[in-house]
Amino acid sequence: VKFQNVKGTRDFYPEDMAVRNWIFQTWRAVSLRNGFEQYDSPIFEYLDLYTAKSGEEIVEQLYSFEDRGGRRLALRPEMTPTLARMINAKSSSLPRPIKWFSMPRLNRAEAPQRGRLREFFQWNIDIVGKDDLLADAEAIFVAVDFFREVGLTPAQIEMRISSRRMIAGLLKELGFADNQLSPMYALLDRKTKLPAAEYAGQLATLVPDGQQRERLIALFACESLDAVRKAARGSEAGRAVIEEVVQLFELLDDFGVGEFCRFDIGVVRGLGYYTGPVFEAYGKGGLKRAICGGGRYDDLLKSLGGEALSGVGFATSDVVIQDVLAEYGLLPDFKQQGVVDAYVIDAAEGSLKSVLRIVGELRRQGVAAEFSYKRQPIGKQLKSASARRARFAVIVEPTALDTQRVAVKDLASGEQNDVSLDTLQAFLREKLRSGS
Amino acid sequence: VKFQNVKGTRDFYPEDMAVRNWIFQTWRAVSLRNGFEQYDSPIFEYLDLYTAKSGEEIVEQLYSFEDRGGRRLALRPEMTPTLARMINAKSSSLPRPIKWFSMPRLNRAEAPQRGRLREFFQWNIDIVGKDDLLADAEAIFVAVDFFREVGLTPAQIEMRISSRRMIAGLLKELGFADNQLSPMYALLDRKTKLPAAEYAGQLATLVPDGQQRERLIALFACESLDAVRKAARGSEAGRAVIEEVVQLFELLDDFGVGEFCRFDIGVVRGLGYYTGPVFEAYGKGGLKRAICGGGRYDDLLKSLGGEALSGVGFATSDVVIQDVLAEYGLLPDFKQQGVVDAYVIDAAEGSLKSVLRIVGELRRQGVAAEFSYKRQPIGKQLKSASARRARFAVIVEPTALDTQRVAVKDLASGEQNDVSLDTLQAFLREKLRSGS
Repeated sequence: VKFQNVKGTRDFYPEDMAVRNWIFQTWRAVSLRNGFEQYDSPIFEYLDLYTAKSGEEIVEQLYSFEDRGGRRLALRPEMTPTLARMINAKSSSLPRPIKWFSMPRLNRAEAPQRGRLREFFQWNIDIVGKDDLLADAEAIFVAVDFFREVGLTPAQIEMRISSRRMIAGLLKELGFADNQLSPMYALLDRKTKLPAAEYAGQLATLVPDGQQRERLIALFACESLDAVRKAARGSEAGRAVIEEVVQLFELLDDFGVGEFCRFDIGVVRGLGYYTGPVFEAYGKGGLKRAICGGGRYDDLLKSLGGEALSGVGFATSDVVIQDVLAEYGLLPDFKQQGVVDAYVIDAAEGSLKSVLRIVGELRRQGVAAEFSYKRQPIGKQLKSASARRARFAVIVEPTALDTQRVAVKDLASGEQNDVSLDTLQAFLREKLRSGS
Repeated sequence: VKFQNVKGTRDFYPEDMAVRNWIFQTWRAVSLRNGFEQYDSPIFEYLDLYTAKSGEEIVEQLYSFEDRGGRRLALRPEMTPTLARMINAKSSSLPRPIKWFSMPRLNRAEAPQRGRLREFFQWNIDIVGKDDLLADAEAIFVAVDFFREVGLTPAQIEMRISSRRMIAGLLKELGFADNQLSPMYALLDRKTKLPAAEYAGQLATLVPDGQQRERLIALFACESLDAVRKAARGSEAGRAVIEEVVQLFELLDDFGVGEFCRFDIGVVRGLGYYTGPVFEAYGKGGLKRAICGGGRYDDLLKSLGGEALSGVGFATSDVVIQDVLAEYGLLPDFKQQGVVDAYVIDAAEGSLKSVLRIVGELRRQGVAAEFSYKRQPIGKQLKSASARRARFAVIVEPTALDTQRVAVKDLASGEQNDVSLDTLQAFLREKLRSGS
């Protein structure tokens, strides 16, 4: 083969496209029923949008190039900067809360490996403009609503929830300063990814005071909010940040998704911009990657030149969703090579005119209809009908346009009916609808 | 505003996205009912795929950049090379005819102007692997099927059809050599775009022989196939290529789309790879651009390293479709800011728990449900319900989970019903379905 797709990307042949379409349709249906509206942006942005948010290091991780005027452009590696840009541009005219979703194609200059592609699709959910714990609960509800929609159960997947606000409050109680928080988050986020000894070493470098470090380790060993309450110093500010997380779990119970949710102080999210509750979903099986992740961000829009609007959101990708569904046997089988409703059969020399007329009319009425370019024996055409998984064969004699009649064979039951042309479409539709 | 989208591209705010989704859904529905399957590819290809098809000149017209390994990549400026690449890679396992469609996002390094953007979406329809006039007729049928689906009439749009094969045959009868055909096509394609004098000048340069030029001009003045028959020299080969076009029009009549189709010898398509019938749709109103264009190509797949498979296809873009529909007032109004089915109203202090439970259940059942984060007077919540175009208000008292009852107000009719929680979802669904 002379030409191939770029390494680390995927071609979507019809059977792959069917899976992607099914995931997209589910994302869209769940978004709409939760009251979200869809938006999208161009595939590229001016590069400075990304460097403004993430610094110059980001340039290594994305595809950038020059436009004709010599300005640097970059393929979208994530959607959040674009979301902030678009909201900032129309902020005053958008009713609050702004509940938006998108399903962007994203590109990153990754070294390809399992689960890390140079191109993938994301589902992004964001609620912007209301700093209300109900918005955090609703964002988590939407993720769980999707999990349930595709058949995932609490035995298979869990949403691990913590709060940057709480962790910040408790770290300050332990004597940490504001400027120590970011490196702490980065390290805590890597806890389960690093070998234990390496983690301990990095922690000792970051927190040289042994007593302070002991207390920190004790805090991050807490497996419940009750335990956190006990480990905390008990200042009023400290209690308030814990009680906010307690309240979030109550709201999730009220929403009916409590059984999917678990407190996990180890969830801090690597990304720099989270400021409140944070959450990550994990499968309970073999897949060790986070299936979705998100949280509240307070400063993002302002840092990109807009109003100080707080938001909460999450993202997941088609790659990880496909992996987790495959693991649990929940991916539908899409070997539906060009399924059609009716295969219109040219019964004898001289039928073609009628076949074309009937195919044209059926399609126009919304019935998926197929036919053979070449006159062939009826048996061979019936075989083609089966190959296309046609539900009906419509058998057309050369006299069909005169008699206004055709034979309709139900290829599942074998039942055959003589049907008048002016009722053909209604006849097929009724049968297709009733599924009988 | 600090950050903007890249010049020549479009952001899709929810109201723009609604239009794009509607166009896509219509493209998809028409494709499926005509028996086509969807495919897609990564947003970028190795650059040499495009230079192999179109030569080095193409590099100027697209966005290219290097991957980490130093290979040149390019954003897709069109879908046809990708189609050829994908079919070539799996050619032997694909049943014939290969009937595929795609709706790719494409990028070109254009100088932005009206109707020419740096990013747009295309609808591509291709039938590959069967060199049969029925495939040409079917491709044209699909385009017309879409026009009818969106409400365009023969009074508003027409498909202009000719044939490269016929033109080649007739030019040879007039004494032109094979290597003169390409520049002739390029010039004929520009006939209506160039000032008459300039066209005449370029024609005189290309065809210095006055008598030959006269005959050429007479040929291209033919307004019907009958006239072409008369202008032709009458060789058997010449008659055969004319009769093929006559037959194509008969098939289009049989298919029921003849009234949209007109012979136009001036349609030759600028692109180099067409070899048989060619066609372009034009609006009859003010819009002077071709609305879609396509034709048969015999050598494309082979030239990109594959089998000699003949194909026929066409493409149109979301930009030109939106323009022509706007011109004829056929674009639906999509000012549907976050339409929901039900707005769940918190009737009094203490209702929140019940509100969340009911919202969660409704959404899970597929009913789009919304609520307010903030307790507000009922009148204000009813206003929010109207703003979201909710069909129903579900009014929840603090006792709702105990009594298992809510009030449902039909916001269109004003009718109010007391409904039990276990029948709420069925009650709303039935009303939504019947539309009453």
